[in-house]
Amino acid sequence: MKAWIFQSTTKGLECVDLPDPVPGPGEVVVDLRAAGLCHSDVGIIDGTITEVLGFTPIVLGHEAAGIVSAVGEGVSNASVGDRVAISAMGDGTSGVIGQSTIGVGRHGAYAEKTVAPESELIPIPSTVTFEQAAAATDAGMTSYHAIFVRGGLRAGMKVGIVGLGGLGLTGARMAVVSGAEVYAAEINPVVHPEGLKRGVKQVVTDVKELAAFDLDLIVDFAGFGTTTAAAIEAIRPGGRIVQVGLGKQEATINTYLLAMKDLELVGTVGGTPADTAEVIKFIASGDLEIATKTIGFDEVRSGLDDLARGGVPGQRLVAILEADDQIQGPTVGGVR
Amino acid sequence: MKAWIFQSTTKGLECVDLPDPVPGPGEVVVDLRAAGLCHSDVGIIDGTITEVLGFTPIVLGHEAAGIVSAVGEGVSNASVGDRVAISAMGDGTSGVIGQSTIGVGRHGAYAEKTVAPESELIPIPSTVTFEQAAAATDAGMTSYHAIFVRGGLRAGMKVGIVGLGGLGLTGARMAVVSGAEVYAAEINPVVHPEGLKRGVKQVVTDVKELAAFDLDLIVDFAGFGTTTAAAIEAIRPGGRIVQVGLGKQEATINTYLLAMKDLELVGTVGGTPADTAEVIKFIASGDLEIATKTIGFDEVRSGLDDLARGGVPGQRLVAILEADDQIQGPTVGGVR
Repeated sequence: MKAWIFQSTTKGLECVDLPDPVPGPGEVVVDLRAAGLCHSDVGIIDGTITEVLGFTPIVLGHEAAGIVSAVGEGVSNASVGDRVAISAMGDGTSGVIGQSTIGVGRHGAYAEKTVAPESELIPIPSTVTFEQAAAATDAGMTSYHAIFVRGGLRAGMKVGIVGLGGLGLTGARMAVVSGAEVYAAEINPVVHPEGLKRGVKQVVTDVKELAAFDLDLIVDFAGFGTTTAAAIEAIRPGGRIVQVGLGKQEATINTYLLAMKDLELVGTVGGTPADTAEVIKFIASGDLEIATKTIGFDEVRSGLDDLARGGVPGQRLVAILEADDQIQGPTVGGVR
Repeated sequence: MKAWIFQSTTKGLECVDLPDPVPGPGEVVVDLRAAGLCHSDVGIIDGTITEVLGFTPIVLGHEAAGIVSAVGEGVSNASVGDRVAISAMGDGTSGVIGQSTIGVGRHGAYAEKTVAPESELIPIPSTVTFEQAAAATDAGMTSYHAIFVRGGLRAGMKVGIVGLGGLGLTGARMAVVSGAEVYAAEINPVVHPEGLKRGVKQVVTDVKELAAFDLDLIVDFAGFGTTTAAAIEAIRPGGRIVQVGLGKQEATINTYLLAMKDLELVGTVGGTPADTAEVIKFIASGDLEIATKTIGFDEVRSGLDDLARGGVPGQRLVAILEADDQIQGPTVGGVR
C-alpha cells in the first residue's frame, strides 16, 4: 500500500510503498477513505513536538474514516464493510495521546490502509460522509470535549468562543444548537460573518470586549497567552475558562483576579470516542457541518506545508483516498 | 467605645472614641472578645487594596468573636449572652467581600463592640476559645474553603500544600485529620518541623519536588507566581491546583502543560459561614489548634506594623479585648 511516512525533521514526509497490514487479535483493517490533516502533524514534522512519536519511521495521520476490510480473531462488533471512524485518542481509557494511538504510537491514516483495535471504532451512519467523519475524530472531538465535557455547557448558559478557526466555528455551532447564548472573539474581521452564519449572537474583535456579555464560560481556541489573560479579565465572577488552543505555550495571567473572582482555568486535551460519536450525531442531525476542504491523497505533504504557513484558516483539510469502489449511498458526494 | 479607625493611607490606624452601636432590625451587637489581625488590613492601610473599602473613616477588622450584648427587632436565633463568631464574608450568599461585610463595608472588629446581622453569626461551643474562633473566621475559613470546597479534598487523596504559613499549617492539619495523604513545600526549612508535627508525611523546600508524590491536588497558599507555575509542572495529569495565596498578583504559567495534562487551576476567595462552622468543629474535636499569638487591644496598630514587615510567620495575631466580665468556663484561658 501507499503511505506517507515520517522519518526525521530533515527528511519530512515521504510517500513510500509498505506491505498491507494484517489484523491481530481484536483488531480490524480499515481501508481509508478520508484522512484529516492536523496542525499537530506540522509540529511533529518541524521538530516542535516530534518527541510524542512512539517510533520512526512512522505513518502519520490520526483523523481516519473508512471501511472495514478485514477483521482479526475475536472481533465481535465489527464486520467487513462497516463504515467507521477511528478514535484519534485510543479507546479513551488512557486520556492522553501518544503510546498506542493512531499516527503517533502506531502507523496512522496517511495511507491506503490502517489497523485499529475494535475498541477504537466509531460507527458512521450512511448520512455522514467520510470527510465529515474524519474531521469529527479530532477537530470535532476536541471542540466537543472542551465545550461540553470540560466546560460543562448546558442550554441557557452564556458562552464566549475565542478564535473562530475550524475548532472554534465547530464548537460555536454545537453550542448554538445546544441552546446556549453564544458570543465570539476573533481577531480577523473577515471571519466574523462565518460566526454569525452559525448562530453566534455577536462577534467582537478583542477578547476584552467579551466582558460586556457576563459570560459563564469562555473557551479559548486561540491560546495566545494574551487571550487567556484577557479571558480572566472578561469573564463573570465564578466563571470557567477552558484552554484549548496553544498558539503560545505560556501565558502571564492575573492570579489576583483568578482568586478574587473565584475562577476556574481548565486545560483540555483531546477527548474520547464517545465525544467523537456525539459530534457525528450533530452532523447526522443536519445541524452541523464541519468546514472542510478536500485534497487528494498525493497532496498530503503539500497540504501540511500549507498548514505550516498558516493557510486554510477556518477549514479542515481532508485528504480523500482514490479507491472508492465500496462507497455507497449519500456519502458518494463527499468522496471523489 | 474605643475603636481603631482607618481614614487614609497617610494617617494609618488611629484609636478613637466612638458612640456605642445600636442594633437595627435583624441585627445584634457583639461585645468583642477577640479580633484577628489579617494581612489584608495591611494592604488596606498601605494603599494596595484600599479601594475595597465601602467608606472612610472606618473601623477595620473582620475576624471577630465575642458575646451578644443586645438584639434588635425581629432577631429570633440569637440571645444576649450567646458566644458567637461573625462571618468575615457576610452571610455567604454574595460570595464576595466588600459591600456590607464586616471591617470592609461596615465598621469592624478592632473595637469594643460591633454590629452584625443575625444571619452572619456562627455559634461558638464552650470548648472553643474566642481567640481560636476569631482565627477560624477568616484564616481558618479561607483554608477550609480552598482545600475542601474548591479543592474537593476527600479521604485517601494525595494533596500538596504550598506554603506553611498560618493558612497552610491549618489547612494541612485539617487535610491530615480528614484522612488525606499530605505533603508540603515550604521554602523556609525552619518551619518544616511544624508541618511534620501536624501529620504532614514529608516537607520539601521546592514546589518542583512535589512531582515525586503523584499529587491529585495542590493548594498554593504562597502564590508567588513561580509557585503556581511549579505546581502545574509537578501535579499529576488530571490534577487540580487551587490558588489561594497572592504573594504576587500574576503568574507566567505553562498553558501547554495545563492543556496536555488536562489540569484545573482554580481560584478561591474567602468562603461561607458554613465553612467557618466546619473549622470550629475541627477545633472543638480537639484535632486542630490554629497557631495564634495574642496581643492586647492597644497593640492592634503595632501588630499590623509587624505583619507589614513580614513578622509573625505561621501564627495568627489575635487581639484580645480587656473587658472580660462575661467570660465563663473553659474559655478563660484563652482570654486575658
